Amino acid sequence: MARRRQIYEGKAKILFEGPEPGTIVQYFKDDATAGNGAKSGVITGKGVLNNRISEFLMLKLRDIGIPTHFIKRLNMREQLVRAVEIIPLEVVVRNVAAGSLSKRFGIEEGTRLPRPLVEFYYKNDALNDPMVSEEHITAFNWACAHDLDDICGYAVRVNDFLCGLFAGVGITLVDFKLEFGRVWDNDEMRIVLADEISPDNCRLWDARTNEKLDKDRFRRDMGRVEEAYQEVARRLGILPETGYGENMATENHA
Amino acid sequence: MARRRQIYEGKAKILFEGPEPGTIVQYFKDDATAGNGAKSGVITGKGVLNNRISEFLMLKLRDIGIPTHFIKRLNMREQLVRAVEIIPLEVVVRNVAAGSLSKRFGIEEGTRLPRPLVEFYYKNDALNDPMVSEEHITAFNWACAHDLDDICGYAVRVNDFLCGLFAGVGITLVDFKLEFGRVWDNDEMRIVLADEISPDNCRLWDARTNEKLDKDRFRRDMGRVEEAYQEVARRLGILPETGYGENMATENHA
Repeated sequence: MARRRQIYEGKAKILFEGPEPGTIVQYFKDDATAGNGAKSGVITGKGVLNNRISEFLMLKLRDIGIPTHFIKRLNMREQLVRAVEIIPLEVVVRNVAAGSLSKRFGIEEGTRLPRPLVEFYYKNDALNDPMVSEEHITAFNWACAHDLDDICGYAVRVNDFLCGLFAGVGITLVDFKLEFGRVWDNDEMRIVLADEISPDNCRLWDARTNEKLDKDRFRRDMGRVEEAYQEVARRLGILPETGYGENMATENHA
Repeated sequence: MARRRQIYEGKAKILFEGPEPGTIVQYFKDDATAGNGAKSGVITGKGVLNNRISEFLMLKLRDIGIPTHFIKRLNMREQLVRAVEIIPLEVVVRNVAAGSLSKRFGIEEGTRLPRPLVEFYYKNDALNDPMVSEEHITAFNWACAHDLDDICGYAVRVNDFLCGLFAGVGITLVDFKLEFGRVWDNDEMRIVLADEISPDNCRLWDARTNEKLDKDRFRRDMGRVEEAYQEVARRLGILPETGYGENMATENHA
């Protein structure tokens, strides 16, 4: 097979042209960055785990009626997805104060919010992904009010479902980031969930100990980053119960 | 008369208990700050001018049906207003990119926006007045969705009216900040426009030359700050056509 045409290389993934028109191959790298590229490194095996975790979550979300770009996993590091026109927004849903929200409003990390919060950030590295409101989004035509209604509706449903799913395996879903895109079916535009859902863009805390099981371990140099990603996969039933990273599992379940 | 009880001293005004219950005396100082207090100084005569300009604009807005806290001007530096429960939001309306918006989105200062933008900032000096969306405002209970509907409706009307008023005297209303409060009449809560409207919290550019006639002259050390405030008052018909500051008037009208 001829070398596939690369469409885009991001911080954690490479996108290749897919085998059929309108499809894309998402290749998951082990590369990790933080602080908009200020810090970078490798989390060994992360790409393999995120490919599996994101497949698992996207399929579960499809089961409850959330349209997604996901078609199927191809191999250890690749999945086939629909080509979408990405909406240039990071949609962040927060249940518990952490990270930039804690800083911005002086709320101690770990404080449960009065209700889930949906925030929007404009996806633009050069501008450092500034927070925006619906006013900016509609005025600058990044999405229309109707798109935003769909996006907010999906974001809230995804949050409810994932809160439940993670609660079931002893994990608190603190916050997460979603991206959405547009697809056309028979000339009709639909909004679909795109990108990935993984410990790269979720904050996941052990429900009992509040131990972090996500990329904050990398961002904050906490160590045992690989083990945290493995632990999430194991609890979701994707990795076998015993395996590499069992220390963390033992510690959490003790 | 006994010394009045001071209720609050802000950066540009002092609030005293008013003569009747439910009233407040706003005293306009000449003090000016910028960058959340990082820079401070005095603009001689500013308090007198802002007292007059804000009286003039609040009365005009009352005439078109915008409820305001303004009762009457008492003297050169003081006005009587209704005591309100201040909503902790700075409501910014923008017609042309400038200041923090230009920086945040990389839009050149002076670029007209696709449509007027309404932004909210949480009034909290310690947190540096962070930008917020309706999500934060309602989740943290700073205002409810119904209050926000009223506020947005008033903000848009104030913008339309002031754009027209300033256009009539050769000034472009680039952006401005409003504050709102709650009052109770016969146990019914109403939202009213509060604080002040003056060159301290508006960006006003000469429509022909784009010369700044507002606090940016102080923020950016451009000089002739007093003259700019006088020029705004003069164009609005509050100061006589000739007087101190005539250099700037001549330059603009030449």
